[in-house]
Amino acid sequence: MLQSKLFTKTRKEAPSDEVSKNAQLLIRGGFIHKEMAGVYTYLPLGLRVLNKIENIIREEMNTIGGQEILLTTLQDPKHWEASGRWDDAVVDNWFKTELKNGNKLGIANTHEEPLAKLLTNHINSYKDLPIYPYQIQTKFRNELRAKSGIMRGREFLMKDMYSFSRSDKEHKEFYEKTAEAYKRVFERVGLGNNTYRTFASGGSFSKFSDEFQTLSDAGEDTIYVDEEKKIAVNKEVFTDEVLSEIGLEKDKLVEKKSIEVGNIFSLGTRFAEAEGLMYKGEDGKNNIPIMGSYGIGLGRVMGTVVETLSDDKGIVWPKSIAPFKLHLIGLTDTSELYNKLIEAGVEVLYDDRDTQAGQKFADSDLIGIPFRVVVSDRNKGTGKFEFTDRVTVETKEITEDELFKLCEVK
Amino acid sequence: MLQSKLFTKTRKEAPSDEVSKNAQLLIRGGFIHKEMAGVYTYLPLGLRVLNKIENIIREEMNTIGGQEILLTTLQDPKHWEASGRWDDAVVDNWFKTELKNGNKLGIANTHEEPLAKLLTNHINSYKDLPIYPYQIQTKFRNELRAKSGIMRGREFLMKDMYSFSRSDKEHKEFYEKTAEAYKRVFERVGLGNNTYRTFASGGSFSKFSDEFQTLSDAGEDTIYVDEEKKIAVNKEVFTDEVLSEIGLEKDKLVEKKSIEVGNIFSLGTRFAEAEGLMYKGEDGKNNIPIMGSYGIGLGRVMGTVVETLSDDKGIVWPKSIAPFKLHLIGLTDTSELYNKLIEAGVEVLYDDRDTQAGQKFADSDLIGIPFRVVVSDRNKGTGKFEFTDRVTVETKEITEDELFKLCEVK
Repeated sequence: MLQSKLFTKTRKEAPSDEVSKNAQLLIRGGFIHKEMAGVYTYLPLGLRVLNKIENIIREEMNTIGGQEILLTTLQDPKHWEASGRWDDAVVDNWFKTELKNGNKLGIANTHEEPLAKLLTNHINSYKDLPIYPYQIQTKFRNELRAKSGIMRGREFLMKDMYSFSRSDKEHKEFYEKTAEAYKRVFERVGLGNNTYRTFASGGSFSKFSDEFQTLSDAGEDTIYVDEEKKIAVNKEVFTDEVLSEIGLEKDKLVEKKSIEVGNIFSLGTRFAEAEGLMYKGEDGKNNIPIMGSYGIGLGRVMGTVVETLSDDKGIVWPKSIAPFKLHLIGLTDTSELYNKLIEAGVEVLYDDRDTQAGQKFADSDLIGIPFRVVVSDRNKGTGKFEFTDRVTVETKEITEDELFKLCEVK
Repeated sequence: MLQSKLFTKTRKEAPSDEVSKNAQLLIRGGFIHKEMAGVYTYLPLGLRVLNKIENIIREEMNTIGGQEILLTTLQDPKHWEASGRWDDAVVDNWFKTELKNGNKLGIANTHEEPLAKLLTNHINSYKDLPIYPYQIQTKFRNELRAKSGIMRGREFLMKDMYSFSRSDKEHKEFYEKTAEAYKRVFERVGLGNNTYRTFASGGSFSKFSDEFQTLSDAGEDTIYVDEEKKIAVNKEVFTDEVLSEIGLEKDKLVEKKSIEVGNIFSLGTRFAEAEGLMYKGEDGKNNIPIMGSYGIGLGRVMGTVVETLSDDKGIVWPKSIAPFKLHLIGLTDTSELYNKLIEAGVEVLYDDRDTQAGQKFADSDLIGIPFRVVVSDRNKGTGKFEFTDRVTVETKEITEDELFKLCEVK
């Protein structure tokens, strides 16, 4: 893409009311726009990153048998009354609205109830299970405060998968399969090194849930990490009894701040039972499926990458989710190389703007595209380019062949 | 995909409260689920269709210079107060909600105001224009009644593009370019033959707007069609004066019912002015950009395809948006052919269910996948397959080579 055509501009300062590092950098780089606290528009660069995260998650969910659907934002109260989660005293972050006739509607913050209800139309027999529907859909949560940028929004895109299984064994097998898929997701988006599967509190149907926590001082959670075992315990269940139960030794654990980037829950039969979801077993008797829920917030992942991988010059995107792979900085006309790259299928942002070199470099550091190539009057036509890796910030001379190889063009 | 794994089931009857043909067929086929009037969940088959429509629209918008973004559902009233569109007496289909502190929020039904406001951060000079941001995003409209299935929802996915131009000439050029792109969209989704560019009323900044109307008795609009010129006039502007102005002869026009599948509007400077969006011209003076808006409802398109292209047995999907290209009906084990097709990259739904042949055929007709191949004990191993085209309902014998050719596998 030609940067001169990109309608967003970088800016030196983030809005004064923006306190989170992730949103400050993303706003300065032109990735997002703050509509209000906890509510952000994704601009072209930001949407490209979000879509890449989305596709990685989608691939991994499809791999383990997920079937993608799209549930609705507007919610009929009756399904939530059935489970006891309509009352604001029970769920304190509902947004609610109403129809012209005065009937109340919910604005969905999660989807266990409507999904279980929907499935009563499709699930009858043990042969219809297990199933793993999931969606990538916008959630709304009426947070009292929202100061974490895109890491805790009032409106945010979430992948939520739900499992419906016939036995504890079947449930646990899929639960572990999803935990493995989650590990792959966090590795692929660039958070693998400092993300820990974490024991957390479980709720009524299971002693524990599993969180995926990424180490960061910007995190709202406190966890105790066993570096060797690559496992952690959330402070909320950090007791001697729990440690002995899960086989961790207190003196090997290090206290860390962290961001919850994903979670998986055993829900038992609570929601299926409330919505009347049953299936006939092989013996002809009615059974209630066992549910699990599996969430990843896409903005949360993007925000966490920015929080944990940026440097003092700006954002440092992992290659897998960068808005472009290559930032071509033209200090002279570089259309020829740009056209070659486009033809070869390289995702390239070409800074063809009529702007000072210093500004171009500063913008490039801020935007954080993994590879940078500078073409100036000095090196144009020599067959050599000045190449910089955004992670190592090392600069070297490379040939055109080497450039195409680095961009994985065969 | 294995049909035995697809969690949705077909059904003989639609819900008794569902009066529209499109939703009746889509619910029976397991494409959608009705949450409440005008609010539908997209199930795996339905989401596949929706995604294909989305990708066609996205490609055409990118081709004319569109830049994709994702605006927010939650809306700050102040931008709408600035334009005079916050009051329910002015815009009668708002859903509204509120924050914990009691501040009111809107739930977006369109996005002129927040987009114009956002752009004040990015547009300064005539060099920054023209631009064409667009999004594919869920809209909410508090319709008094919602009886048209997915054709008029209270919650629906919409592509809305907005143009910001520096002169009437520049605006009109892009307006026409978009009209051409819209034609390509409606051709590609299978509605080209009976969709007409239609003169409609324009609002304060332009005498006319342009609608794209698809002929259908299920439509809410009445238009007058000139078959030769492939152009129409909406009843709302059907006067002798208008006809003479646009050069149509009354006696060549035929009255038809139709569905509005797309629209394009000239908005003048109204919203940009209200939000303080200005740019400095070459002469250094402040100017207000001229806006246009360009909408296509994705569910509306999908519903219109079902309304206009189905037959008495079920849905008939155009190849471009069908959930799968090929429905492989196995009356005996057909895994070998299925695996070959998958390997060749054919989008195939394999009915491997332990179900009666009659049920499989009825389901296949209802689901409406373009090509059907039946493999039974009779023809298995003969190298010949029974092939049916869903449009012509003609059945013939074809070889495996011919099958792969039909599926466009090289």
